[in-house]
Amino acid sequence: MSFDNAYEAITEENDSRWAFGTGFTDPLEGVDTTVPSGVDGADLAAYCLMLGDDALILSHRLQEWCTHAPELEDEVAIANIGLDLLGQARLLLARAGRAEDAGRDEDALAFLRAEHEFRNVRLAELPRGDFGELIARLLVCSTWRLALVQRLTGSRDPVLAAIAAKGVKELTYHRDYAAQWAVRLGDGTEFSRERMTAGLAAVWPYVAELFTPHAVELRLAEAGVAVDPSVLRAEFDDVLGQVLRAATLDAPEVPGIPGVAGRAGRDGVHTESMGFLLAELQSVARANPGATW
Amino acid sequence: MSFDNAYEAITEENDSRWAFGTGFTDPLEGVDTTVPSGVDGADLAAYCLMLGDDALILSHRLQEWCTHAPELEDEVAIANIGLDLLGQARLLLARAGRAEDAGRDEDALAFLRAEHEFRNVRLAELPRGDFGELIARLLVCSTWRLALVQRLTGSRDPVLAAIAAKGVKELTYHRDYAAQWAVRLGDGTEFSRERMTAGLAAVWPYVAELFTPHAVELRLAEAGVAVDPSVLRAEFDDVLGQVLRAATLDAPEVPGIPGVAGRAGRDGVHTESMGFLLAELQSVARANPGATW
Repeated sequence: MSFDNAYEAITEENDSRWAFGTGFTDPLEGVDTTVPSGVDGADLAAYCLMLGDDALILSHRLQEWCTHAPELEDEVAIANIGLDLLGQARLLLARAGRAEDAGRDEDALAFLRAEHEFRNVRLAELPRGDFGELIARLLVCSTWRLALVQRLTGSRDPVLAAIAAKGVKELTYHRDYAAQWAVRLGDGTEFSRERMTAGLAAVWPYVAELFTPHAVELRLAEAGVAVDPSVLRAEFDDVLGQVLRAATLDAPEVPGIPGVAGRAGRDGVHTESMGFLLAELQSVARANPGATW
Repeated sequence: MSFDNAYEAITEENDSRWAFGTGFTDPLEGVDTTVPSGVDGADLAAYCLMLGDDALILSHRLQEWCTHAPELEDEVAIANIGLDLLGQARLLLARAGRAEDAGRDEDALAFLRAEHEFRNVRLAELPRGDFGELIARLLVCSTWRLALVQRLTGSRDPVLAAIAAKGVKELTYHRDYAAQWAVRLGDGTEFSRERMTAGLAAVWPYVAELFTPHAVELRLAEAGVAVDPSVLRAEFDDVLGQVLRAATLDAPEVPGIPGVAGRAGRDGVHTESMGFLLAELQSVARANPGATW
């Protein structure tokens, strides 16, 4: 296929790049989305929202880095990681919408839910922060999520298993990228070390939440569909330990910040910055209900 | 009137404080809002939007200071200045809605317009900044707006004249508050002087725009309804000169930042932060269309 100019290339009708215009192809087109026997559809929808919202919200924070990265190489890397996560979010939200009774599509789930309906862990939503915080958050999130999706490839739900298989490749790269930077900053200059240390201190209070199972996760883990996140802690500590040793840094010793009355991100209880994030994330869809282009 | 508890007090039916619930009384109730003879209703609506949007958008930036002021006295003062401006915005937007053909109410104008439909000067929308920038912006805005509304008390439009008369009292206090802080910071410690100097430098590129007349302003000034803002510059320079002398500071010597192809705030051409401001300002109304409580 050849084009006379770049505009023709991106408007070519049979072009399949997905980030252009509305009316995207359903990411689960052609996939059998029957809910596996013995599994509660509402539970499965809730679980897909949890993992989908983690990806959607962290992706938004990474998008905020566009034009702010320290060099062009990282500009592209961070944007690509954000796009990977957005792709995971699309699949998971589409799966959630298909599994729930109300049957909403990915756009309705991303753009028309209120703050208390989002199920992401709070670590995903924390304000953008500086580059040290970005690397600390990416390192923690991708290490945790990679351990999770590796196990999820064996899910009894074939859709989740397929989504997870795709995610493993992506998250392996994300974790590698973050680990390299953590070592470069931690074992770098006095200033870079200070920023990396501060970054770890900023995200660490939200680490414990990643391993706290929600009732939905426990029920679905029992059914062979989901992963109980508490089983991931040992691997997480092991990987983080290796990276931090190479970076000549110590893991912060701070307690986790509990939610409100034991409820946190997975229950829809979020931090102050979540409302501001959604106001921005949803502003175009809210201002132009039902618009297509 | 006595109440058994505070809840009863604020829910008392005949309570008239306006910042509670929807369904506020029309701020222009009982006022004759006939458009004066020889005046174009569309021009009058556009002019009221200009002055109303200045007040609405700056008020939003002042509200962002809530819980961030350096001491309680200023916490209350800044919030009150923001409330005064919100009151001015309500009157002016209500007037705009009444004068235009479409006849939108103040809420529709504040919450359902897109960025390019807002007519405020760009100085009103600049990001919150630090306390030095706040004082610099308040000093510049209130000095300019006070000079404007003083002249507007003689407007041929009785509604604008009445709104202006109320505004004179408020803005006299705002200008006084900002001037006192400018002197305290500028003629204070080395650190406070540095911050005040930086604050003035941050806002000064947007000062020229305040005195650049729009075609609507010129037509309405000709008709005795509006004020040509270019006539305000001498008074502005005189007042700022006095304050800065007392603060032992100099006015920055920087050129104004032009708009795009000669179009700026009054034409709906705004800076990057305007979209983010509106996303937040309009998020509740957009998320719950037509909701009342």
